[in-house]
Amino acid sequence: MSIRVAIVGPTGYTALHLIKWLARHPKAEVTYLASHREQLPHIAGEFPELLGVCDLACQPIDAPAIAKAADVVFCCLPHAAAMAYVPKLLDTGLKVVDLSADYRLTDVDLYERVYQTQHADRGNLAQAVYGLPELFADQIKKAKLVANPGCYPTAAALGVAPLLKAGLVKPTGIVVNAASGVTGAGRSPKPNLHYPEVNEGFSPYNVGGHRHQPEIEQTLTAVAGQDVRVLFAPHLLPINQGILETIYMDPVHGAVSEEAVYDALEEAYADEPFVRVRAGFPNVKHVTDTNFCDVAARVTGGKIVVFAAEDNMVKGASGQAIQNMNLMFGLDETLGLT
Amino acid sequence: MSIRVAIVGPTGYTALHLIKWLARHPKAEVTYLASHREQLPHIAGEFPELLGVCDLACQPIDAPAIAKAADVVFCCLPHAAAMAYVPKLLDTGLKVVDLSADYRLTDVDLYERVYQTQHADRGNLAQAVYGLPELFADQIKKAKLVANPGCYPTAAALGVAPLLKAGLVKPTGIVVNAASGVTGAGRSPKPNLHYPEVNEGFSPYNVGGHRHQPEIEQTLTAVAGQDVRVLFAPHLLPINQGILETIYMDPVHGAVSEEAVYDALEEAYADEPFVRVRAGFPNVKHVTDTNFCDVAARVTGGKIVVFAAEDNMVKGASGQAIQNMNLMFGLDETLGLT
Amino acid sequence: MSIRVAIVGPTGYTALHLIKWLARHPKAEVTYLASHREQLPHIAGEFPELLGVCDLACQPIDAPAIAKAADVVFCCLPHAAAMAYVPKLLDTGLKVVDLSADYRLTDVDLYERVYQTQHADRGNLAQAVYGLPELFADQIKKAKLVANPGCYPTAAALGVAPLLKAGLVKPTGIVVNAASGVTGAGRSPKPNLHYPEVNEGFSPYNVGGHRHQPEIEQTLTAVAGQDVRVLFAPHLLPINQGILETIYMDPVHGAVSEEAVYDALEEAYADEPFVRVRAGFPNVKHVTDTNFCDVAARVTGGKIVVFAAEDNMVKGASGQAIQNMNLMFGLDETLGLT
Amino acid sequence: MSIRVAIVGPTGYTALHLIKWLARHPKAEVTYLASHREQLPHIAGEFPELLGVCDLACQPIDAPAIAKAADVVFCCLPHAAAMAYVPKLLDTGLKVVDLSADYRLTDVDLYERVYQTQHADRGNLAQAVYGLPELFADQIKKAKLVANPGCYPTAAALGVAPLLKAGLVKPTGIVVNAASGVTGAGRSPKPNLHYPEVNEGFSPYNVGGHRHQPEIEQTLTAVAGQDVRVLFAPHLLPINQGILETIYMDPVHGAVSEEAVYDALEEAYADEPFVRVRAGFPNVKHVTDTNFCDVAARVTGGKIVVFAAEDNMVKGASGQAIQNMNLMFGLDETLGLT
Repeated sequence: MSIRVAIVGPTGYTALHLIKWLARHPKAEVTYLASHREQLPHIAGEFPELLGVCDLACQPIDAPAIAKAADVVFCCLPHAAAMAYVPKLLDTGLKVVDLSADYRLTDVDLYERVYQTQHADRGNLAQAVYGLPELFADQIKKAKLVANPGCYPTAAALGVAPLLKAGLVKPTGIVVNAASGVTGAGRSPKPNLHYPEVNEGFSPYNVGGHRHQPEIEQTLTAVAGQDVRVLFAPHLLPINQGILETIYMDPVHGAVSEEAVYDALEEAYADEPFVRVRAGFPNVKHVTDTNFCDVAARVTGGKIVVFAAEDNMVKGASGQAIQNMNLMFGLDETLGLT
Repeated sequence: MSIRVAIVGPTGYTALHLIKWLARHPKAEVTYLASHREQLPHIAGEFPELLGVCDLACQPIDAPAIAKAADVVFCCLPHAAAMAYVPKLLDTGLKVVDLSADYRLTDVDLYERVYQTQHADRGNLAQAVYGLPELFADQIKKAKLVANPGCYPTAAALGVAPLLKAGLVKPTGIVVNAASGVTGAGRSPKPNLHYPEVNEGFSPYNVGGHRHQPEIEQTLTAVAGQDVRVLFAPHLLPINQGILETIYMDPVHGAVSEEAVYDALEEAYADEPFVRVRAGFPNVKHVTDTNFCDVAARVTGGKIVVFAAEDNMVKGASGQAIQNMNLMFGLDETLGLT
Repeated sequence: MSIRVAIVGPTGYTALHLIKWLARHPKAEVTYLASHREQLPHIAGEFPELLGVCDLACQPIDAPAIAKAADVVFCCLPHAAAMAYVPKLLDTGLKVVDLSADYRLTDVDLYERVYQTQHADRGNLAQAVYGLPELFADQIKKAKLVANPGCYPTAAALGVAPLLKAGLVKPTGIVVNAASGVTGAGRSPKPNLHYPEVNEGFSPYNVGGHRHQPEIEQTLTAVAGQDVRVLFAPHLLPINQGILETIYMDPVHGAVSEEAVYDALEEAYADEPFVRVRAGFPNVKHVTDTNFCDVAARVTGGKIVVFAAEDNMVKGASGQAIQNMNLMFGLDETLGLT
Repeated sequence: MSIRVAIVGPTGYTALHLIKWLARHPKAEVTYLASHREQLPHIAGEFPELLGVCDLACQPIDAPAIAKAADVVFCCLPHAAAMAYVPKLLDTGLKVVDLSADYRLTDVDLYERVYQTQHADRGNLAQAVYGLPELFADQIKKAKLVANPGCYPTAAALGVAPLLKAGLVKPTGIVVNAASGVTGAGRSPKPNLHYPEVNEGFSPYNVGGHRHQPEIEQTLTAVAGQDVRVLFAPHLLPINQGILETIYMDPVHGAVSEEAVYDALEEAYADEPFVRVRAGFPNVKHVTDTNFCDVAARVTGGKIVVFAAEDNMVKGASGQAIQNMNLMFGLDETLGLT
C-alpha cells in the first residue's frame, strides 16, 4: 500500500522537487495538490517539466478533503502562511511535514523577533520535531508534525555537530561562510534575482542578520549541551541548486589533528546513508539532485575548517522532507531517494 | 568642446551602457539624467557599478531644463512612453536619438498593429531617420531625430543587406534564426527571466510573431527595392549580452559560390569600422562589450547561410546610439567606441 | 532477476549517466566496468558523485570475463575504438548497445568517408539495428546489437519523421538549426571547451559538415521512402545538458494548417511514453535529466517549423540506451527511466 | 608621445586584457608581441575578439629587438619562465612589469619552497618593487622592475591593510575566505576547468596550501610592522571574471564599532581613485571589467568582517599592471583605466 501524499503550496520550487522525487518513490504517491490561488492551475501547466509525470489539477486548501485523499501533507507555504493551515491539517489526523520556518524555533520569542510576526500556533509548536534525521531520527519516527530544517542549517548542523559532540571545537567564534544557488530564494521574480543581475555575479547578503543563524545556533546548542554562537555569512551563487559551507572553528585545545577531526566525522556518519565523509574537497556539483550531504575537513592556520555541500532543494528541503516522511511511516529512510 | 548629453529613462540597461560608454568618450559628457520615477535616485544608488563613474542624481523629465543642460538626448523609455516625450524634446531644439520602437516603422498602420497602440507623434515620425549607420549614414548626419534600430534588426540587416543588394539571394523564404542574451528583455524582473528559469535553459519564443520581424522586413525591403519577407525565430540564451543570428537564404540562381557571397560582404563593409567580415564562425563572445558586428557566410545544402553576431547592448543598442550621435554632430563615428 | 550490465568505457559522460540511471533501475544492475586505462580507477574516484551510488573498481576490457559477469554491454567508447571490441563481446553471446557511431550508418562507404577510417566490422554492421525505439521498436526487441543514435539525430528524427510520413513536408530544403550543451562534446578538456571560452558565448560550428548530418538523412530517408536531404547547423550552448532543434521545412502543398501538423505529431506519438507533443514552445530545461523529447510546431512565413528538445545525455544517449536495453530484454521500455 | 609597450607571453588571458585596455589608453601603444611559440600567430588569429583592435603578428622573444620597439615590457609568462627572460629585458634598459610570481616574494627561501623551483635572478629580485599602488606608489614611481601582485593578494591587502594600520585587528587568526572566476586559473584547458565540470559547481581548493597565502602575509606583515598570519581558503566560482573575499578578523580590543572600521577604510582610500568604500555589500558584478576594488565592512558575531571585490583580470592583474606603468612613467595613474 502506498502512502498517499498531499502537497499544500504546490507551485513553488520545493513542491516541484517533491513531486519529481515522489514520482519515483516506490511506496508513496501524490494524490492531492492544494493551492490558495484563485485560478487553480493544472500542475503541468504551471511546471511544463511535469507533463507526463504528474497529472493532477490543483485544488483548494480544504483540510477535510485533503484528509480523505491523503495520509501525510507536505506544507510548502511560506512562513506565517504555514501556521495558518497546519493546525487544521493536524486536527484531521493527517501527519504533517512543514517546510516553512514556523515550527523550527522552539523559543517563541526568538521566532517572533526573527520573523517579525506573532506565532499563531504555539500548541503544535510545542510538539513539533525538528526534522534532521541524522540527529533526531528517534523523535521523527514518532512525530505527527515535523519541522523540516532550513537549507543552510542542515549543512551547518551536519558539518559541526560531530565536532561539538566530540568536544573538539569551541562553542563560540564559529564562522559559517555559506554560498547558495538561487532556487533557495524561491520562485517569485525579484530585481536582485533577475537573470542578468545574478549571472556572472557573486555577493554576500544579510551577513550577521540572516534568519537561519538562530536556527543553526539552536541545533548546535542542543547537540553541544551548552550555548553555541555562530557568525553566519551567506552569499548568492550564480547556479540553480547547491549549497557549500566553509566553516571555521577554533579547536578546544591548542592543537588538534586532522585525523581526530575525521574520526569524529566518520564515527558520527558511519551508519548514515546520506552523509558522505570525504577526503577530497566537496563540490556542490557532486551532490546536485541527490539527497547526499558531503563533508570534509582540514586543520590549518590554527583552525578546524569543515566543508559541507548539499543540494539546497534536496537534502536542504524536499529530499529531507521525504526522508522524514519515510521515518514517520516506518519505512527505510532511503526509500525513493536513491 | 564636449557634446552635452541627456538621458531620458536612465534606470534601464540601455541607459546603463550609454553612461558607461560615454564616460570614456573624449568629446561627450553626460550632464542630465531625466527619470519619471517619483523618488529620483542617484544613478550610483541605482547602479552601484557607476559609483565613481557618474556622479549625477536623476532629475524630472523637464524638456526646457534638459535643453539648457544638453545638446542631445538619448531617449531610453519603452515604446509608447517615448513618443509622449520626444516631441517636447525636439521642440526645444534638442537632437534626439530614440532607442524605443516608436520612430522605427515608417508605416503608421503597421506600427499600430504591431505595437497595439495609437501613434501619438506622426509629425516627427515622418522626419525620423532609421539609425543604422552602415546603410543610412548620410541621412543620419543631417537628422534631428534618429530612431535607433532594434537589436535583432541590426544584426539581420547587416547580415542580409549586402546579399540582397548584390542580387544573390531571393527576397522571400529568408529564415532568421536568432538567439539573444537576457539583457535584451530589459531590467524588469519577470517569471520567465527569473534566474533559475533561464539558467541551463534555451527556448524559442514569439516565433513568427515578434515585433522585430516587420522592422527587419522594412529595412531589407528598402535595401532590395522590392518586397522582402522573413521568418524570424528568436530564442532566449542563458547569457547576459549578445545576439547571434543564423540566417538561411535561397540563392537567386541555382548555384552561388561562397566566394561570391564573401565578395559582396567585403565590398559592403570595406570601409565600415564596426563590421568585421570573418572567415571563421562568429561567436557572441568575440563581440561582447564592443560595437562590432561580426559576419561570416557558408554556402551549403543549397542555401546561403549568413552568421551575424553583435552585443545586443552595444551595436544592438547603446553603442549604435553613440555611433549615431557621433554622425549627427559631425564627429568620427568611432569616437568613444573603441 | 536483474539484468546484469557491463559498461565498456566507463569514464566518460555517457557512462556516468548510465551508472546514475541504472542505480535506480528496478531490474538492472551494473556489475562490471571495463576500461582500457592502464591505471584502473575506482569509479567513485573518477566521479566523486558516484560515492555511495556505485561501488565498483574498473577492470580490464576482457570479453570472457565480461560475459561471465553480465548479460548486456553498453559500449561507451569513441567511434573506431568501439568496433575493435564489439565483435569480441558479441561472440561471447552478450547483447550489446553501442553508443558510438560505428554501427549507425548502414552504408559502409558513407561511414568511411564521414569518419575518415576504415570500417573494421562489416559483418556485425549488417545485423545492427538503429536504436530509435519510437521508429524501430520491433527490430530493437529482436536485436543482439543496437546502434544507439546520435544526440542530434534523435531529436531531428523525432521532430521530422511524422511529417514526412504524413506527406506534409518536402524531402529537400530541410534546415535543422540545432544547439547543444557542452556535455555533448565529451569529457576531454579542449581549448574551445575551456570554461571561460564557452561561458557567456554562443556560436555555430561545423555547419554543413557535421557527422550527424548523414545520420539524420539516413533515418529520414528510411522513413520517407525517398531521398531526404537536410542542412544541419549545430551551435554550442553555454549549458551542461540539453539540445534544442528548430527545424524549418517547406510544406508539400502551398499551404498547410498548424492543426494538420499537430495531428500528424499526435498520431505518431499517441502511444509513445517519451515524446511529449506540446502546444507551447519547448525549453531544454523542461527535459533536463529526463528521457523525454518535447516537440511542438508552428506554421508561419510559409514554412512548417518544428521544435524538438531533449537532454543530450538522456534521450540523446544514455537514457535511450537503457530504453533499448529494456526492449531487448522484453521489459516495459519505461523501466528505470521515470 | 606615446609609451611604446611590449608584451611577452601574449597568448594568455592577462595579455588579452592588457591589449584590450591599452587599445584605449591615450598615451600608450602596443608595439611588440613576443611569444616563445614555434608557430608565431597573428594576435587576432589567436584572439578573434582583437580583429580590428590590434593588428600585430607575434614575434620571437628577442630582448634587443624588443628594446628597439618598446619602452616598457609587460611580462605575462608563468613563474619560472618569467625570471628566465626578465634579466635580459632589464639589461637593455627596458622597464618591466612582471605579472608572474617570480619577483613578488622578497624572501628567496620562501619563494623556493612555495614555488618548488630555484630562484634564478636574485639580483633583480632585490630591487623589484611590489606593485600595489595604494600601498607602495612612491617606490613604484622610481622602479625599473615592478612585481605585479597576485589577484587574491590584491583584494586581501586592500581589505585588511587599513585595519592593521589603524590597530583595529589582531595580526593572527585572520581568515580570508575567497572565491574567484575561472580566468584566474589561466587559459590552458584542464579537466577541472572543462566547462561541464565548472558550470553549476562551486568548491574550495588548496585551502591552507595556496601560493598566494605567503604573498598576502608578506604584504600585511610589512604594513603592520609585525608578523601577520592568515588562513587563506580559495574557492572556484562558475563565472569568468571576478574575485570576492570575505575576510574574518578578531578586533584587538573586545569591542569595535562599525563606524571605527569605516573610518579607517575611508581615511585610507580618500584619495585612491580605484578603491571604492561602500556601505552596501560588494558584488563582483559591480567591478567586472573595471579597475575598481570595492570594500565594505561589518562588525558582527564578535568579528570584523571585511568584503573586497575586484575583477581578477583587471585590478587583480592587467589593469593594475597598467596602473603601475602609469606611475613608472610619471602619468596620472588612472590614464586609460576609466
